[in-house]
Amino acid sequence: MKPTLLHVGAVVRDADHVDEAPTYIVMENGRIREIGSGRYPRSTEDMDVYERPTSVAIPGLINCHGHAAMTLLRGAGDDMPLMRWLHDRIFPLEAKLTADAVYWGTLLACWEMIASGTTCFTDMYFFMDDAARAVAEAGIRGVLSVGLVGLQEEAGRQGLARTRQFARTWHGAADGRIRVTLGPHAPYTCPPRYLEQVAELSAELDLPIQIHLSETAGEVEDCVREHGRSPIALMRDLGLFARPVLAAHCVHLSEDDIAILAQHNVHVAHNPQSNLKLGSGIAPVPRLLRAGITVGLGTDGAASNNNLDMFEEMRLAATLHKGVGLDATAVTASEALAMATSEGAKAVFLEPGHGRLQVGAPADIVLLDLDSPVLLPIHNLISNIVYSASAAQVTDVFVGGRALMSRGELTTLDTERIRFEVRRLVKQLRAPAPV
Amino acid sequence: MKPTLLHVGAVVRDADHVDEAPTYIVMENGRIREIGSGRYPRSTEDMDVYERPTSVAIPGLINCHGHAAMTLLRGAGDDMPLMRWLHDRIFPLEAKLTADAVYWGTLLACWEMIASGTTCFTDMYFFMDDAARAVAEAGIRGVLSVGLVGLQEEAGRQGLARTRQFARTWHGAADGRIRVTLGPHAPYTCPPRYLEQVAELSAELDLPIQIHLSETAGEVEDCVREHGRSPIALMRDLGLFARPVLAAHCVHLSEDDIAILAQHNVHVAHNPQSNLKLGSGIAPVPRLLRAGITVGLGTDGAASNNNLDMFEEMRLAATLHKGVGLDATAVTASEALAMATSEGAKAVFLEPGHGRLQVGAPADIVLLDLDSPVLLPIHNLISNIVYSASAAQVTDVFVGGRALMSRGELTTLDTERIRFEVRRLVKQLRAPAPV
Repeated sequence: MKPTLLHVGAVVRDADHVDEAPTYIVMENGRIREIGSGRYPRSTEDMDVYERPTSVAIPGLINCHGHAAMTLLRGAGDDMPLMRWLHDRIFPLEAKLTADAVYWGTLLACWEMIASGTTCFTDMYFFMDDAARAVAEAGIRGVLSVGLVGLQEEAGRQGLARTRQFARTWHGAADGRIRVTLGPHAPYTCPPRYLEQVAELSAELDLPIQIHLSETAGEVEDCVREHGRSPIALMRDLGLFARPVLAAHCVHLSEDDIAILAQHNVHVAHNPQSNLKLGSGIAPVPRLLRAGITVGLGTDGAASNNNLDMFEEMRLAATLHKGVGLDATAVTASEALAMATSEGAKAVFLEPGHGRLQVGAPADIVLLDLDSPVLLPIHNLISNIVYSASAAQVTDVFVGGRALMSRGELTTLDTERIRFEVRRLVKQLRAPAPV
Repeated sequence: MKPTLLHVGAVVRDADHVDEAPTYIVMENGRIREIGSGRYPRSTEDMDVYERPTSVAIPGLINCHGHAAMTLLRGAGDDMPLMRWLHDRIFPLEAKLTADAVYWGTLLACWEMIASGTTCFTDMYFFMDDAARAVAEAGIRGVLSVGLVGLQEEAGRQGLARTRQFARTWHGAADGRIRVTLGPHAPYTCPPRYLEQVAELSAELDLPIQIHLSETAGEVEDCVREHGRSPIALMRDLGLFARPVLAAHCVHLSEDDIAILAQHNVHVAHNPQSNLKLGSGIAPVPRLLRAGITVGLGTDGAASNNNLDMFEEMRLAATLHKGVGLDATAVTASEALAMATSEGAKAVFLEPGHGRLQVGAPADIVLLDLDSPVLLPIHNLISNIVYSASAAQVTDVFVGGRALMSRGELTTLDTERIRFEVRRLVKQLRAPAPV
């Protein structure tokens, strides 16, 4: 592939370093080869050149928690608490999802995520071979796991076998864009003995784990009643935290829980919008950050959010904790941007360099239109990006140096076909069961 | 003007009535003349026809609180508490604002608001003749007030005189798109005697009042210390609530305060994002709604939000109170949409019909692109609009039957000129004062 040259009006290298001046970026072999000020000084022959003088380049956003194919269930159940929402609406619809549905639902999610500046996402669901195929085709990065539920022994065993197979097939596939993790759903769906097996398999495959932890108060109470300790303490005692773990939600935490997370270097995926919408609560993010815990941001699935827009999560992470703690300095714009980029990359166990625009780093770059009214004027570019920007300003998206969106047009996905298939599948989902 | 005909794929008539089928809408003389299912059955000769078969029409959004020209200060001070933010950052910059700056800053706000589906907004600022001129040119509706501060007697008197003059010039101007209200800033900037004069002038001019009330805990404490009662009780005792009043913020309220607001039919502008970002807190909106109080939504100024996107306020109003109250039913999607449309219209004292798509109502209509991935699939259209849509889906905006945006292109505003002038003005604002 020819090297790609970007001319942009400004660059956010990371959450603390901004060049507010014309800059060129050269991408080659999937990585950033060069960043320099002004125009590229040598011949641009044999380069793909993108002239974007009124754009700012930022690191691609990293969505640290979600269930991609749940786009098919967007709006299928709202204004309901988590457990009722799961059992009355989501599980019955999910029972009808096919491999085909997961494939198209994941493509819809990839379309939405690319169009809103996300270059890497995590997924925990089922029919994951089909989800992985969608990721490979879309050109985005995916940190994927087979969702594991261990309530029935045989299903639990099958899940572990499927995970082993999934890792063999997909870990490092699609030019390394796909990475595999283990995906035990939660302590309330995975009994202790099963979680120990998950930890063992994680060690054997040398792959990290992602799991839902302490999302609702009720879940924590149940765990304390059943196991005599919090979900966090239980995971430690089961040896899960001896492995690299990304814990989603972490809304209801004691001081002891936070100390355990910090001590075992457990990463946290903060999903502010999903937690609000399901009435789960508000994670103590300022305390997590003060404890030195790596916190990334996630949208969660589209059934509980209901979109996959990381700009909203960034903004909410930066504003919500200010309002709740009556402290306008609680989480700064720079901290929120880091959570969506460099810290998010750490949280999902990507190699160093991800989430920053620097020479040698993977070329995952998003361009925002500085001519848009919401980004005018520029007193502080990071502030504009975190507090004002939205998906509407995303014009171009590169992953591993390849353009997935160019001036608003998707290059890898047949969006008309996705629309058609999604509408077809949802008609089937909503049809009454045959008698 | 010729009648305008819209063919759309679906219509949200109001927060509780949706037609999920092809529909035509005829607009004439600023109002909706006809709504019918399918295609318009008669000749379309002599009509301006907009074919938008993949769009949904919704009522234009109503922004119930803001300071439009503060777009010029977007990002000028963040991650700071309200009072320090006001005194250290905002007031010094505002002191340098000129009439010219307010004109261009207001045009920037109008551009941003039109592009994000807002058809009516409120404003309380200074150089309001220039702001009104911008509103007249932009084609949007404005409920405008001269910001009144009564800390110095002479300035206070001038403000009242200016208000009188402003009402005479602008109330009902621009085909009735501009309405004037009185704008005393807040109890901590308007002493009791001054507020009494404001109430008197409001009665004399027969115009409503808008004011900031109980935004921060500190402000309420100060009021109790100085006046022996809360800001809400003080306003009642000064006779302000004998007049129609729109109270912005109302974050820190006692049960007595809520009873007073309900009893006097005071309207509330809820600004969830601004209140979070400034660390002010979270207004008790579910309790206000249960008390039967009219609540609209506002963005507040772009210096404290930092954008003017009403989709975000809708979404936050629908999700924030669920998370804070651990109750996933706290504010429903339908309630949030009503706050942004029909209830918002009531809140800012527009005539009945505003904020709904019905025959005879003002033709303020916004089209959203249903082919966008974030609006796919449709299980529940209201849910998609409140929980998933954003400014990115807004394609066409009509105010009083006139297209202000068509397929993403602004028709009334010279956006390149606004960009140029805003950048010029901000350079001046940021320049060090001459020695």
